[in-house]
Amino acid sequence: MQDRVHNWINQFDEGYFQPLEILAAITEELGEMAKELNAVYGPKRKKAADMSSLDQEIGDVLFNLSCLANSLGLDLKECFNKSFAKFEVRDKDRWTKKEL
Amino acid sequence: MQDRVHNWINQFDEGYFQPLEILAAITEELGEMAKELNAVYGPKRKKAADMSSLDQEIGDVLFNLSCLANSLGLDLKECFNKSFAKFEVRDKDRWTKKEL
Amino acid sequence: MQDRVHNWINQFDEGYFQPLEILAAITEELGEMAKELNAVYGPKRKKAADMSSLDQEIGDVLFNLSCLANSLGLDLKECFNKSFAKFEVRDKDRWTKKEL
Amino acid sequence: MQDRVHNWINQFDEGYFQPLEILAAITEELGEMAKELNAVYGPKRKKAADMSSLDQEIGDVLFNLSCLANSLGLDLKECFNKSFAKFEVRDKDRWTKKEL
Repeated sequence: MQDRVHNWINQFDEGYFQPLEILAAITEELGEMAKELNAVYGPKRKKAADMSSLDQEIGDVLFNLSCLANSLGLDLKECFNKSFAKFEVRDKDRWTKKEL
Repeated sequence: MQDRVHNWINQFDEGYFQPLEILAAITEELGEMAKELNAVYGPKRKKAADMSSLDQEIGDVLFNLSCLANSLGLDLKECFNKSFAKFEVRDKDRWTKKEL
Repeated sequence: MQDRVHNWINQFDEGYFQPLEILAAITEELGEMAKELNAVYGPKRKKAADMSSLDQEIGDVLFNLSCLANSLGLDLKECFNKSFAKFEVRDKDRWTKKEL
Repeated sequence: MQDRVHNWINQFDEGYFQPLEILAAITEELGEMAKELNAVYGPKRKKAADMSSLDQEIGDVLFNLSCLANSLGLDLKECFNKSFAKFEVRDKDRWTKKEL
């Protein structure tokens, strides 16, 4: 996924945006995702709310997160692993284990 | 990645949060990522700003995005593909192609 | 400001949204504000970027923040005062005092 | 409110941050507000969740929004009025009017 993003961005002279510009782009995409989620799971504002574009909005957040990671030289899998390892330690007794 | 998240969440009685609860969690994690980015690339507020936890904050956003996708039955790769396909069409003439 | 919001919302049977729904609405509006800011101060993506709607996007965030405060029975001025008092103590030696 | 923020910021050589830096700060504060809201209205994660700091988090968002408006030479009341005027037109038939 990061490679595809890199190959795409790398075709262009402009290259990656600056980190705070990418952050603003992620904030923008999160806002669009929030709009879709609120339309489907919120106060029923749309007549015919559907999830048809929710997957794309999630994808847009992910695309911009990949841009950020790439521009900083970070590997998303390693970022995820570091985060996951934290949850495994911190939250292991936070929730109720299912009975087997 | 989504499988690991699922196996983790699936151990617990509580299961996934509601969509708007997960959205709030993503907003929270994005805020922590913004804090780190601003400390490193913003108005130099910290004495010794470093990127040591930026990778984890990015991972935290990704972890919660996986939770959201899982709870909605969506595949992150397909979300990404749908988003990427849109960019490939919409933005192909937006930027300056590098000279070969 | 909060009174005007209250009089507006209070005309309708639906009343205020739930807190996490209002949060999602604020996230959505922040995203639109981010989009405008990035268009004006970011990587020059628009041909003729202007600030014509930035004021409205800021207003939209403020409107939804008022809804949240109202629905929780909080006074925005007091919220601001509490925050400001914290900055006055915490940050008073953080920045460089201007020479008189 | 904006005057108090201006007098505060104006004491310091550093002055206002850049727009995208302030946006990142707002994103950060929104994240902290989201954390509090999720603790109180979300999946009951804290044992003794209380609203003691929610007012301050709302104030922090408002403080940073004031910084943004000030730095751009915008009046928050006018921003609000512009937003409110839009809602009054756009949403007047969106909700159910209370019976008198």
